[in-house]
Order: sequence, then structure tokens, then C-alpha cells
Amino acid sequence: MTPAQSQLVEEAQRIGGARAVVTDPADIEPWLTDWRGRYHGTAAAILLPATTAEAAAMVRAARSAGVALVPQGGNTSMVGGATPPADGRALILSTRRMRGLRSVDAAAGLAVAEAGVILAELHDAANGVGMRFPLTLGARGSATIGGLVSTNAGGTQVLRFGTMRRLVAGVEAVLPDGSIHDGLSALKKDNRGYDLNQLLVGAEGTLGLVTAAALTLAPAVRIRAVGWAGVASPADALTLLRRMEAHTSTIESFEIIPGSSLRLVVEHIPGARAPLAGDHPWHLLIEAASGDPSAPLTETLEALLAEAIEAGLVADAVIAASEAQAEAFWRLRDSLSEAERAAGPAAQHDISVPVAVMPRFMIEAAAALEAAFPGSHASGFGHLGDGNVHFHVRAPAGMAADHWYGEVAPHATRMVHDMVVAAGGSISAEHGIGQMKLDELERLSSPAHLAALRGIKSAFDPMGLFNPGKLVKVAPSDAAT
Amino acid sequence: MTPAQSQLVEEAQRIGGARAVVTDPADIEPWLTDWRGRYHGTAAAILLPATTAEAAAMVRAARSAGVALVPQGGNTSMVGGATPPADGRALILSTRRMRGLRSVDAAAGLAVAEAGVILAELHDAANGVGMRFPLTLGARGSATIGGLVSTNAGGTQVLRFGTMRRLVAGVEAVLPDGSIHDGLSALKKDNRGYDLNQLLVGAEGTLGLVTAAALTLAPAVRIRAVGWAGVASPADALTLLRRMEAHTSTIESFEIIPGSSLRLVVEHIPGARAPLAGDHPWHLLIEAASGDPSAPLTETLEALLAEAIEAGLVADAVIAASEAQAEAFWRLRDSLSEAERAAGPAAQHDISVPVAVMPRFMIEAAAALEAAFPGSHASGFGHLGDGNVHFHVRAPAGMAADHWYGEVAPHATRMVHDMVVAAGGSISAEHGIGQMKLDELERLSSPAHLAALRGIKSAFDPMGLFNPGKLVKVAPSDAAT
Repeated sequence: MTPAQSQLVEEAQRIGGARAVVTDPADIEPWLTDWRGRYHGTAAAILLPATTAEAAAMVRAARSAGVALVPQGGNTSMVGGATPPADGRALILSTRRMRGLRSVDAAAGLAVAEAGVILAELHDAANGVGMRFPLTLGARGSATIGGLVSTNAGGTQVLRFGTMRRLVAGVEAVLPDGSIHDGLSALKKDNRGYDLNQLLVGAEGTLGLVTAAALTLAPAVRIRAVGWAGVASPADALTLLRRMEAHTSTIESFEIIPGSSLRLVVEHIPGARAPLAGDHPWHLLIEAASGDPSAPLTETLEALLAEAIEAGLVADAVIAASEAQAEAFWRLRDSLSEAERAAGPAAQHDISVPVAVMPRFMIEAAAALEAAFPGSHASGFGHLGDGNVHFHVRAPAGMAADHWYGEVAPHATRMVHDMVVAAGGSISAEHGIGQMKLDELERLSSPAHLAALRGIKSAFDPMGLFNPGKLVKVAPSDAAT
Repeated sequence: MTPAQSQLVEEAQRIGGARAVVTDPADIEPWLTDWRGRYHGTAAAILLPATTAEAAAMVRAARSAGVALVPQGGNTSMVGGATPPADGRALILSTRRMRGLRSVDAAAGLAVAEAGVILAELHDAANGVGMRFPLTLGARGSATIGGLVSTNAGGTQVLRFGTMRRLVAGVEAVLPDGSIHDGLSALKKDNRGYDLNQLLVGAEGTLGLVTAAALTLAPAVRIRAVGWAGVASPADALTLLRRMEAHTSTIESFEIIPGSSLRLVVEHIPGARAPLAGDHPWHLLIEAASGDPSAPLTETLEALLAEAIEAGLVADAVIAASEAQAEAFWRLRDSLSEAERAAGPAAQHDISVPVAVMPRFMIEAAAALEAAFPGSHASGFGHLGDGNVHFHVRAPAGMAADHWYGEVAPHATRMVHDMVVAAGGSISAEHGIGQMKLDELERLSSPAHLAALRGIKSAFDPMGLFNPGKLVKVAPSDAAT
């Protein structure tokens, strides 16, 4: 621990008491490695404020001491966004003790949750008042509200409800100068200049620590219908989605799955069975849901799919006859990553392009990748209606994982990213930049865009104290030591 | 014209030809005064780029010459946001010639409009493909897309569709350094750091010139039902809205009107008739609309109002029996400002508070104002469901307008704003800050908040060239000359 860090730790104890600081290496260790086990950092202490006021006081103390801080919630970043730097210059600022649900108001359709509240806890609290928080993802048992806000998290319900950006009605945060931004009042209309709430959403903790958020609730789901369809192409799938959306506003999920990926799931995941008898090049998982238990969802979905079969848009389709079957359909979708992993090493890409462009992109990008890397297998699956797929390139059969990851995959990734940028897309649709995509962001952004990002960063955090090495590169002279 | 301005004008002519510059004072004059006639500025020339590339070249030239620019669209700002400074240091940068509708795509639900496209033109273009752009306001025949984006405009459809911020899927802009921000690709998911699109929405032209926007379209309205109800209080009105929203997602407008204001309309507006027989303390104008012509809107609205009468929540109600009657209901609402003006001088305030707080705020603020300014009449009307009303304080009968506006109204305004801030609200819900509310924003914001606004401003526009004197005060040393 540097003398400056020791000074900060002492000050943090004065501010929040003994529970507000962890310095035992064994207790720190689990928080130094990222969710996927790719990044390992070092930190001499974790600061654990219990309140926004304590967090603000600690940030002011860190600023006086010139010590960098890494905001951390559930540490479930997919891009190393919450892992401290390896050189030990930063301490972790954890929201783990800020677990208050300040309000859950069904009438107003709003909940105010502190940063450390876990997503599953918010789901339960909303359900408790007949509502739901309509964003969910795999890490719901660990991911925190502060992290979800700071990464503008997505998930499987984005089609209908949008990402966190859309669901966040207000933000409270401690800015790098130690002041508190109080944007929690959740005004539906507020035109007092630049929208600091929106700026903090997706800022990955580089502009301060999000300490609480006001979040939009929706009526609880009372009824759902889950269908599975086989189609000839992503283009047909998108046409189907447009037709469905023209007839109903209840479509919550519309996930596309290549036939080859479904075969991997059936092969590698115990108990998995294909919902349709024949072989299809592409599959769709479609969910309609409503807060009105009398909504005729099954009938609507059935009619729309029958019409699509009639029109030659869908080859075959089935609607889950029970909740158990609906769950089984979703398990197939949720097992894709695991099945892909079992099939061999792969390079994974979380990318988006304009929705209308995605069908062609999926076909052309896969063909180009497979041509450039003979023996590899490329395909995208996921949120077609959001223009966002997880695009995987699997190593040729028999290629050693080390060789693939060390020598080949980085080239495949550059090629995927180049094609995404050429299509007007984003190299990070859901997961953010963190440390994993920082070099690629620099490589693929215009100097003007990077200058704007750096300008905002240094306006808020001139000393470079917040989450150094993530999202935006600052000039070395700006960085804290 | 200063030598630097002459140099810029010559350069602009080289860039865009003779049509790209207006220097005849008679042609400039109409653009020097704001919509309400409160602010009058001076500018030696108007620059009129025809394309984004021309705009960028002109901005670079202005930067080289050190000349400030005032972005201007339809010049319909309610807060003097597009009027040049009085000292003549700025030229006007008008989007009038950037009128291209680059695309109107019904399938994608997106239109890309250049900054100078007038709102009514976009409405017509969307209707032409069976869609609509669901934001409208009084100035629709003059207001431009660039201005609507830059002010995060609201209007009467916000309840269902949100403000411009929600409808803007992408922004193209020329930043103060002359670079082009291309955020038009309208990705539904993009987590590559700070959201520059959102930052430019509502920035009032202080961070650059918005040159085009990608905008979300909704299905065209095929059927609507318009109702009028009398209620005892704003609290009952909000309860009614909540109940309606729990049963239908078709409610587009829910406007509250004090009985006293309706009486003024009936008194001052030729042909105006009250929709209900009796006298009611408060009135509601409720519109439900759908893109599905078979939606049973009248039946739904009737049933919900009948239930509310049964429950004692509504005293009396009627549903427009024809389009003509529906129009007549809306004319009553749209005549409120005119009728209020006819009744005497007033101080008007465009304010918001959290929706749940608004009913109490309307009652308590009106009582407090009338107590503090004996003989005055205070009341709010408008978008109750958005937590946004136009709160007017009318001068005591017989008070001279000069005395009211000069001596009394400023104190009433400060009192209204103080109460709004105490309630966690905003002193500008829809209209922005411009020059009119700049001092009040400074008075009522925390130093930390103002520092954040100034930090962003100087990160983008270190020379203070864009729309000087609006939205954010910069240190004199930053300002261009």
C-alpha cells in the first residue's frame, strides 16, 4: 500500500467505521478477477461506503490523496470493466453495502434502488407490488443496479422495453470532485440543459460513482405465449417480426438461432430436444406477454404464425402447450453459449448494426469469415429485433486452443469489427468497452469522436481518478499515480 | 461587420456560393427577434449552408476567424434561445436550406430528416407512408427538426411517446471544432461510451449544430376518441389517469384545465362552449388513439368514465360524438393562453414536478401565490400526466401592465421557481433555458451542477463560439470576441 493509499484507508475508516474498509488480502482476492476470468488486477483495499454521504466523503478523501478508485458492483462485467489495474495504483470502491430499496411505488410505476441492490432483489420487490422491472439477464443473481446503470445493460426484453438507458428515470451519483449529483426526482420533462443522468448511464464508472437510480416499472406479466418457428433466412425472420409488430404490441422477445447452433445444443446439452421435427436453417424463439390475464396471446401468436406459414414466410412452427414447455424452449436459447463452448474454442463478438441491415450482415459476414479462416465456423444468434447478435467464430476442428486464441482469433475479431464498422454498426452492443475493447475502440473511432470522449472525461475527472484504463484513454499526464 | 466577420463571410461564400450568405439588413431583420417578441439581437450576416459538409467548413472558418455563431432553425424558441446577442459579435448559422428528408422508412419505423425540415413537413411525409411522427406542438408550421432536437421539445403527445429525447434514434452534428459527429445509424444498442447523441439533444446549440436526426415513427392514427370530464381536484384527476392507464395503453393526452380558465375561454373566445352543463372546479380533456381502426376506443373510454362516475371520481363526462366535436374540445384547450392573455397581464411558467406531487403542488402553490400577491389569480393547466403544467399568475384586476411586468411579476416568478425547486421539480419542463431563464438556472442550481454544465460546454466549445449567452454561462476569458 502506498503512503497515499494508507492515508485514504485511514480517512475512510474515520468516515464509515471499521466495516467501511477491507484490507485482508483473502477478502480482497475474489474481487480482483473478472467474471470471465480473463483479467486479474491488484488492489490493496476495498472501500465500502454504506451511504451516499459516506461515498462522497471517501471520494473527496481519494481526491485529496490522489488515489484512483475502481467502482465495483457485482463484478459481472464481460469486458473487464470493474477489475482494478494490475499495477495496484487504485483501490476498489464497492457499492456492496448500499443495498437500500428506497421506494417501490406501483402507482407511480417507479422504484428507487441504491447502487448495491442486486437485480434479482429488485425483480422480487417489484413482483411484491404487482409490477415488474422489465430488464433481465443471466447474471441477475449477482449484477447490481449501479453496474447495470453504468453499463447501460441490455438483455432479452430490450425489444419491447429498451436498455437501461430507457428504463432509468433518474440517477444519483458522486462525481469525481466529491459533489453529489441528485437527479433522482424522476421528472418526465426537464429541460435544464445537458442531461447528466443520461451521460452517467453507460459511462462505466469513469465519470463518478452511481449511488442510486430511479427505475421505471411495468405491470407484472400475467400471461405469456412462447412460440418456436423454423425459417429459411434472417431476412424472412425480420419480415415476420415486422408483420407481428404491426398487429400486436405484446412481442417481448424475438431471438434467432442458426440450425447449426441448435444441433450443437441438442448434441451437448443433456435433455435438450429440438421443438420442430424437420431440419431448418434458422430457428426463432418468440415470446408475447401481457399484464392483462385475459389477453388472447396464444390465439394471436397462433394466427400470426399460421398466416406466415400460409405466406411461405415460416416453414413450421409450434406454440408451447405448457409453462414447462415454454421453459424448455428458453433453456435451448440459454444453452447456446455453453453448447458452443463444448464444440471448441471460439472468438465471441457482441455487435450491432442497423436492424434492417442485420439479415444481410449475418449471412455475408459469416461467409467472409469462413473464407478468410478456412475450416472455421461463423454464425450469429440472438436479438435480431434489436439489430444485435452475438457473433461467434469457432476454431477449425482440431486446432489447439492456444494457437487459436493467441494467433488466429485476434485477426478474426479485427475482421468482424471492421465489417461491423463498415455496416454502420457498433463493436459493443451490450457489454461496453471496459479494458477488453479499449484498443479496438481507439482503432475504429474517428479522432473527433475520441476527442469528444476524452473532453467529457477530463471535464468530469481531470485527475483521471475514476476507473482508470477503462472506456477512454487519457493522456498519461492526466492520470493519477 | 468586424474584420473577422468579413473574413468569415467571404470564406462562407467561397464554400457555399452566393446563396450561402445573407448580408442585406432587410433580409436579416426578421431573424433578429424571438417568437414572443421579447428579445432583439444584432447580426451582420446569416450563413446558410446547404449541406452538412458546407456547415462543417463554415464552422471551421468561424473557428479560424474567432467568430461566434448562433444556430437557428424556425426561430420559435419560447426562451430567446435562437436570438443573437445584442452586441453583434455573432453571426447567425441558419439551417433553412438544409431541407432534405433523407429517408422515410415505414418498415424500419424511422425517418432521417435534415435540420431545416419543418415539423409539419415531416408529419406529412410520415402520413404519406401510413405512419406518423408522434410529436406535435403549436409551432408545427415553423419549428424545424434541428431546433426540436436541440431543445428536446415536448407537446401534447408526450404522455404516450415521450419528448424528442425518446424519439431521437440518431443525431448528426457539426461540433465546434468543425468535425462531423455521425450518430445517424440509429442502432438500437450501442455501448461505446458516453452517448453523444443524447448529449446533443436539449443542448440548445451550445455544443454544435445539429444537422440531421434519425427519428422514430409510429403507426398512423386510424381512430380516436376524445372525452371531457369534470372533476373535483387534480388529485382525483391523477387517480383517474392511473386507472385508465392500468386498463389501456391508448391514452395519448390527458390535459387538466381549471374551471376558472374554461370560463375565461367561454367569455373571450368567439364560439367557445363548455362541453358540460354544470360548473366544475377542474376539467379534463382526454384523448385515446390507435393505429388499429377496429380498436373499441369510444366504448373503452365510455366504460372507464362511467366506472369513474360510479366511484365518485368524476362528476360528469361526455365523449365527442363527432370529429367536429372532438376538434371543438381541443380548440378549448388550445385557446387557454389566448383567453388568459385577454383577461390581463400574467407571469407564465413552464414547470414540472414529479407526477405524484403535481396535484398537491397545483393547489398549494396557487394558494401561496395568491396570498403573497393579493388580488392575483394563480393556476396551472396542461399536461398533468407528465407532471408538467403551465403555471400562470395573473395580475390583480386594474393593475397596469407595466407595473406588473416591471415590479411584481419577477417576484412572483422567483416564488414559483423556489416552490418548484423545493418540490424536486424543474424550472423548465419543455421550453429550455435559452437566455430567459439563464439567471434563474444559475440562482437555483448547485455549484457542482453548474460546474458540470460548464465543464461539458468547455470540453466541446473551449472558445465559447456556439450560441453564446444561452443555457450556460462561460467565464469571460473563454468567450469569443
